[in-house]
Amino acid sequence: MAAFSFNKLVIFGVGLIGGSLARALRERDGVSGARTVVGVGRSAASTARALELGVIDAAATFDDPVALRAALAGADIVLLAAPVAQTQPLLERIAPLLDAATIVTDAGSTKSDVVAAARAALGSRVAQFVPGHPIAGRESSGVDAALADLYVDRNVVLCALPENAPRDVERVAAMWRASGAAVHEMSPEQHDRVLASVSHLPHVLSFALVEQILGSPDAALKFSFAAGGFRDFTRIAASSPEMWRDICVANRAALLDELDDYTAVLARLRAAIEAGDGAALEAVFARSREARSGWQAGGSKTGTDDASK
Amino acid sequence: MAAFSFNKLVIFGVGLIGGSLARALRERDGVSGARTVVGVGRSAASTARALELGVIDAAATFDDPVALRAALAGADIVLLAAPVAQTQPLLERIAPLLDAATIVTDAGSTKSDVVAAARAALGSRVAQFVPGHPIAGRESSGVDAALADLYVDRNVVLCALPENAPRDVERVAAMWRASGAAVHEMSPEQHDRVLASVSHLPHVLSFALVEQILGSPDAALKFSFAAGGFRDFTRIAASSPEMWRDICVANRAALLDELDDYTAVLARLRAAIEAGDGAALEAVFARSREARSGWQAGGSKTGTDDASK
Repeated sequence: MAAFSFNKLVIFGVGLIGGSLARALRERDGVSGARTVVGVGRSAASTARALELGVIDAAATFDDPVALRAALAGADIVLLAAPVAQTQPLLERIAPLLDAATIVTDAGSTKSDVVAAARAALGSRVAQFVPGHPIAGRESSGVDAALADLYVDRNVVLCALPENAPRDVERVAAMWRASGAAVHEMSPEQHDRVLASVSHLPHVLSFALVEQILGSPDAALKFSFAAGGFRDFTRIAASSPEMWRDICVANRAALLDELDDYTAVLARLRAAIEAGDGAALEAVFARSREARSGWQAGGSKTGTDDASK
Repeated sequence: MAAFSFNKLVIFGVGLIGGSLARALRERDGVSGARTVVGVGRSAASTARALELGVIDAAATFDDPVALRAALAGADIVLLAAPVAQTQPLLERIAPLLDAATIVTDAGSTKSDVVAAARAALGSRVAQFVPGHPIAGRESSGVDAALADLYVDRNVVLCALPENAPRDVERVAAMWRASGAAVHEMSPEQHDRVLASVSHLPHVLSFALVEQILGSPDAALKFSFAAGGFRDFTRIAASSPEMWRDICVANRAALLDELDDYTAVLARLRAAIEAGDGAALEAVFARSREARSGWQAGGSKTGTDDASK
């Protein structure tokens, strides 16, 4: 069990992701200190449920400068668990209120844009910001869905900046390890490329299939004969439109690279189908099956990715 | 409970699909008659397990003309549950041995090619052949995976030919209803278009994503950070390469139409991503989510499609 001690953690956005971290650090073994968790939301209503559930000890609203100052005073760590598009305005608001010793981190699904937002908002104080991404989620969202074990055996990626003090990066890593996660380091560009490939692109492809069927003249008939293959392939097409809009825009460069590579693979398969080249198709399908089966056998890939961010 | 009576059913290919029909007709209520089921395989080994499990009463091999003639004598119904590419050679072999009163049907995932194969193999006797497709399956295959309730609440499509006697079509429909399925009629072209859209295309798209990742320089890194979205999207990329090769070749015209439509939708999404047009992306994603959520709520879409054909 990883040991981790904190006195005050401030979470902006106490939904599934922020709430699960709060619950993990309050309920799991090996965590010590005063362990006070303060939640900050857009309105009092948005943190009321987290208070009621005991996920947080106190709440503040984003637009109340006095309460916000009190919330941030003496904080060990601040976690931004709001949609990535809010990173820059959030950081601009809290920058003048931050103690010099407070470490700020985030849980956003994209990292290059978050780093740019942090540099723009924090200037030379960007050293206090350690970018991160817990690759975890559930189909349900909101603080009611928060679980103390959401991060157990899940991956968290940290994209440390050159300006970060190694001990600050290690402190954020220790926090995630205390919640049960395995922590990895990557550059923001590498993170965004990897996630574009295995998460963002599949979401776009899945939304696109449902969109295509909706636009066809026999859409109702097609949906009524769709079965298990369609169900699995399109499960992620029921994801949050707002969240995936933001991700697609924030990570557009990496996503377009992956989309173009994918389109090239699809063109190759199209040519094989048109030519009736069964051997070429079978070779691709057999390679894919082997890789996919090996991946499944290789670990516990449960839950959804990015369900709430 | 639908009533159905038969004396002798002959199944070519006693795997998941054929075996499940045999079990359903032997174990479910409302089925009467002598209910003898004869399995035919490529070799004695391929039917031995079905005999051992009591799924069939007797077995014959495809290349033993004497046993095959005895198997077919007096059969009410013959079901072809072998890969679709074998339809024509199977029908050519059994054509001279068929009683005039025997109805032949199949369980193939594609129908236009099966109809063409039946016309080529049976000539004027094609009236005895009622093309069909039970849209059902499991992740596991083979007769050990056969279930008496595999077809309960699943869809079976019959593509009756102009030459078919209505009472023969009704008899095949009654057989599937007795196994628990809902029976629908479509033209072969309509069936192939619908299945190309909601089953064949998603399989190709899923195989293509794994193929793309395999071909990228950081494949191992990508696989190691893949999570729930990837898992769902690529579950069908672990499907049988041989089966999907045959389906892609057999249904190539409809599949290419769907693939081209899909590529056009993807190009539209690509343009919106490149332009950073969040409103356009959100509109598509919101439409897709609503349709997908409505589909899920609308019925029991369990199991996999075409797991074994």
